[in-house]
Amino acid sequence: MLEDKSQELTPISKLGEFGLIKHLTEHFPIIQKSTKISIGDDAAMIDPENQKVVISTDMLAEGIHFNLGYVPLKHLGYKAVVVNLSDIAAMNAMPTQILVSVAVSNRFPVEALEEIYAGIALACNRYKVDLIGGDTTSSNAGLVLSVTAIGLENEEKIVKRSGAKANDLLVVTGDLGGAYLGLQILEREHAVYLANPNMQPEMEGYDYILERQLKPEARTDIKAKLAELDILPTSMIDISDGLASEILHLSDQSRVGFHVYEEKLPMDESTIHTADELNLNPAMAALNGGEDYELLFTISPSDFEKIKNHPDFTIIGHTTDNPTDNVLVARGSNQLIPLTAQGWDAFLNKE
Amino acid sequence: MLEDKSQELTPISKLGEFGLIKHLTEHFPIIQKSTKISIGDDAAMIDPENQKVVISTDMLAEGIHFNLGYVPLKHLGYKAVVVNLSDIAAMNAMPTQILVSVAVSNRFPVEALEEIYAGIALACNRYKVDLIGGDTTSSNAGLVLSVTAIGLENEEKIVKRSGAKANDLLVVTGDLGGAYLGLQILEREHAVYLANPNMQPEMEGYDYILERQLKPEARTDIKAKLAELDILPTSMIDISDGLASEILHLSDQSRVGFHVYEEKLPMDESTIHTADELNLNPAMAALNGGEDYELLFTISPSDFEKIKNHPDFTIIGHTTDNPTDNVLVARGSNQLIPLTAQGWDAFLNKE
Repeated sequence: MLEDKSQELTPISKLGEFGLIKHLTEHFPIIQKSTKISIGDDAAMIDPENQKVVISTDMLAEGIHFNLGYVPLKHLGYKAVVVNLSDIAAMNAMPTQILVSVAVSNRFPVEALEEIYAGIALACNRYKVDLIGGDTTSSNAGLVLSVTAIGLENEEKIVKRSGAKANDLLVVTGDLGGAYLGLQILEREHAVYLANPNMQPEMEGYDYILERQLKPEARTDIKAKLAELDILPTSMIDISDGLASEILHLSDQSRVGFHVYEEKLPMDESTIHTADELNLNPAMAALNGGEDYELLFTISPSDFEKIKNHPDFTIIGHTTDNPTDNVLVARGSNQLIPLTAQGWDAFLNKE
Repeated sequence: MLEDKSQELTPISKLGEFGLIKHLTEHFPIIQKSTKISIGDDAAMIDPENQKVVISTDMLAEGIHFNLGYVPLKHLGYKAVVVNLSDIAAMNAMPTQILVSVAVSNRFPVEALEEIYAGIALACNRYKVDLIGGDTTSSNAGLVLSVTAIGLENEEKIVKRSGAKANDLLVVTGDLGGAYLGLQILEREHAVYLANPNMQPEMEGYDYILERQLKPEARTDIKAKLAELDILPTSMIDISDGLASEILHLSDQSRVGFHVYEEKLPMDESTIHTADELNLNPAMAALNGGEDYELLFTISPSDFEKIKNHPDFTIIGHTTDNPTDNVLVARGSNQLIPLTAQGWDAFLNKE
């Protein structure tokens, strides 16, 4: 669980709740000028300076969203922040602050929390967001992290899920399916390890997909790239539960249908290669795998020329005027396969 | 755990994560005009209309902050909201929105979550705040609730912990110690019940203190009352962990000391009576009991005449220029007893 297993461990009760919060958060700098009061008062205070405030929260539970058998605590802290920043990016807003609450059982020493907070600090630094509040509590059970992310933007720049029109183009950033296949490799090697702890895990050649799973990034860079192209998406969502599931959300809220072309789905070579190795259909990993934290958005067809050759964006389909007409157009055959939400569900899946 | 034990129970997996969120939140109205986007997008959007945004978050864990053996789920949902609104009130701001995340094990049926959300809805209605986001997830462990509360106010009205000056008056709202004694009664009767489930709990005559523990209220009414008196506190905090602990926070952040007079501590008759019955010192319950969710604040001595006879406020002491001089002046004897933080600590206490 901890990287350096030789160190002496400190029980949390030695510091107490206030001592612990102070200890864990004292080295977080304030970077954003909108942060007016940070940790230490009853509440933090933000000055939005005439902008709108977007806010999102996500909870990650041990054994459901992560397995401490193969997820390093520092990566967990980093990822817990990133998945929330991704929601802010999906509104086309800039993340500025986060609040983080952690429930841990007493089996965790202070050093374990330090690892989680080191990951949180890394994410704060990478994305220039301020940690302005939170809570740290004991739990009778496993580890639960709750992160709230805040972003600021002018209202006319905010992009909702509900603005897509018929005949819009469907665009995705980056590539898909990698995080899911990274998870398959982690689970395979973890099972091997549990069967025989002396076996060395075979992680060679899986670097990209492992990083996609363990250390995803939020596409906060996309906002500036779209602005540079003079494109404002008509609707947008981030891909946390899988492409198909997110398309159905856009369909539901924009009242349009989607045609997605299998041959257009962007995938990294190592994703395709690993899918082949594991006898999985790479397109299914892209459609239903989830946790890619790429952005999925629709644009007006008049924006086609602006975006068509951009290396960060792939046009994977288009909208139709029938909200129930959500299909994958299969490679080659042009067979139409209905899209269904087979993505991540915290009440059905366990890692 | 559920009030009507005769009903048929629905497993959470029947609805799935999205179905569950929709089911639980569909009847929450939007009241605040600052709420521009609510549940259903990647993030909510708030229009602060030139005001500052205050934000606070708290996490409640089963077995640490509450015992489902005697805390009804509806009360738990209500209280989880209230304790966060109390933090917003402690900044002298008006709460406007909340986000609620809940992690539950599969042993909870949908109906249990409905009870929690009924309590949340009751609090939203009572305090006119909008539920604008959250997350619902499975957990391998107990029940964990994380609430984030948001409030709006102009900067010049915001009151921090750090503004008290020497010779300020220390004022508290309402009365103290009741929630702690309510907990003692609940624990006593729960122990009796565990020993003999056929015994009827003796709750008669404890209504006030039981309500203080099970259904506390946030003093969001105080802001208007202070404004009517033309008083802006120099510092403020809410009493969640106990009077002594909160005084030490004000002392630490305002760099002043506090003299508190035991004979001035406001207590309800039933609090004193129950303390006597249980052989507890009522002043200690007021000082260290916690969970009263009253507001504690300092005012300039020039405001004395404005506040002295107000039924909602009690002047319990004053500040000194020595930040290490924090004492309780004992009743009668004038003996000085150093104040120490013996209040609630989630890593030391368990209910």
